[in-house]
Amino acid sequence: MRLTEQQIDQYRGDGYLVVESLFSQSEVDDLVDALHRDAADPGPHRVLEDDGRLRAIYASHQRSAEFAGLVRSPRLLDPVRQLLTDDVYVYQFKINAKPAFGGGRWAWHQDYIAWKIADNLPHPALVNVGLFIDDVTEFNGPLIFVPGSHRYGQFREDRADQAASEQHLDPDDIALKPAQMTALVHEHGMVSPKAKAGSVVFFHPEIVHGSAPNMSPFPRRLLIATYNDVTNEPRPVGDPRPEYVVGRDTTPLRPLGPALEQVPA
Amino acid sequence: MRLTEQQIDQYRGDGYLVVESLFSQSEVDDLVDALHRDAADPGPHRVLEDDGRLRAIYASHQRSAEFAGLVRSPRLLDPVRQLLTDDVYVYQFKINAKPAFGGGRWAWHQDYIAWKIADNLPHPALVNVGLFIDDVTEFNGPLIFVPGSHRYGQFREDRADQAASEQHLDPDDIALKPAQMTALVHEHGMVSPKAKAGSVVFFHPEIVHGSAPNMSPFPRRLLIATYNDVTNEPRPVGDPRPEYVVGRDTTPLRPLGPALEQVPA
Repeated sequence: MRLTEQQIDQYRGDGYLVVESLFSQSEVDDLVDALHRDAADPGPHRVLEDDGRLRAIYASHQRSAEFAGLVRSPRLLDPVRQLLTDDVYVYQFKINAKPAFGGGRWAWHQDYIAWKIADNLPHPALVNVGLFIDDVTEFNGPLIFVPGSHRYGQFREDRADQAASEQHLDPDDIALKPAQMTALVHEHGMVSPKAKAGSVVFFHPEIVHGSAPNMSPFPRRLLIATYNDVTNEPRPVGDPRPEYVVGRDTTPLRPLGPALEQVPA
Repeated sequence: MRLTEQQIDQYRGDGYLVVESLFSQSEVDDLVDALHRDAADPGPHRVLEDDGRLRAIYASHQRSAEFAGLVRSPRLLDPVRQLLTDDVYVYQFKINAKPAFGGGRWAWHQDYIAWKIADNLPHPALVNVGLFIDDVTEFNGPLIFVPGSHRYGQFREDRADQAASEQHLDPDDIALKPAQMTALVHEHGMVSPKAKAGSVVFFHPEIVHGSAPNMSPFPRRLLIATYNDVTNEPRPVGDPRPEYVVGRDTTPLRPLGPALEQVPA
């Protein structure tokens, strides 16, 4: 799938772009089955809530054929290559489960600052792809964006002393200050895309975003594949994060051919 | 102001009723000024956040002419008398501040269970009136209702052993169980009224409701006046809650005459 010029302009201007129902419900069901299989194996790549439910899982694309195929799907990879560059690899892959009645709130933050601190990543030359595994509503803790906020660069650079070796960065540590956030929202407002399962949101690594807890009795599982320019590899750090958090394989991904790619229903 | 038959039916069926812009912005501005004056005096009727900001204030109608007038405004009192009975008094008056970036989440609960436990209140013969002091959006922690849930009676009665003497009941103590909530929402869904400052929501003391934290840089102040049937006075309890939490003056309120009542702009 190729984005139109208008969609590309929208991404550049707003820092995010929603494509509704890019995957069919039956494709999403297959991914959910694959997720359940992958999540059955314990390991540090699984992050659990206090009550034992899955909070997040990393790097399923390294273990599961379905997710390995997904990150090479032309429906994701073609747009990412349009937005970034031809040669990209998966820098990080995670599924945030945000279970029913849970999943905490995420403070307002920019992803790239975390990666710069933790991974010594030179540039924000990445694209996040968020695939909705569940219908996203106003009640289940949707992502909230400040449109256009990616155009300001980085709001916080004063926390480079900490967290460099932490595996799961706490967004509170890199959160925008209240005054910064107030000024930004006065200028740009907030949006939270709501859409059916199978919809996709492409978003910039410097867009300011957060999310409320999931108030609903339904999970809000969100798959996030972050693609990086292969020339933008992390530089050495004292204690690199494990490969399931930060992918080491920078071989450029190539889109699967049409024969391997299901067509949306 | 009198409610139409249709509005009354809506309240009876859904358990809540929104009347948009019942008060003008300039009337709301006057109430905000009165709130600031009232909140300047310290005392146990003020509840503060950890950072010192106002979280809630009780019984302003006992101290401030503006709020004493408000609870007697025909725009609030006439509908309440239609929904309840002619002779009502203010059982509880509070303003929840839910400040910017704060204000925590409220678990799914029914108000009446708290009042039954804490105050030995015989019947759910009350009406809540929520007056929006600020514009309510999807981002600043709006009330969320399960429409029609008031028609099931009480979902929790097994916690009567605790909290009876607590001044500020924690909704988590009386929260619906996840399975109850899941079944309810599957049947009835969720709604969260969004409206301008000055809008009013009438809601039933047994409607299941909750709210998410305020993710926005703007406060979400909500005034809640709870009216009770004068024949439904609390029965004696060992350690009654203070009068600023539970009003003792059961003299029936009479609507102010039109000369004392501003007309909405």
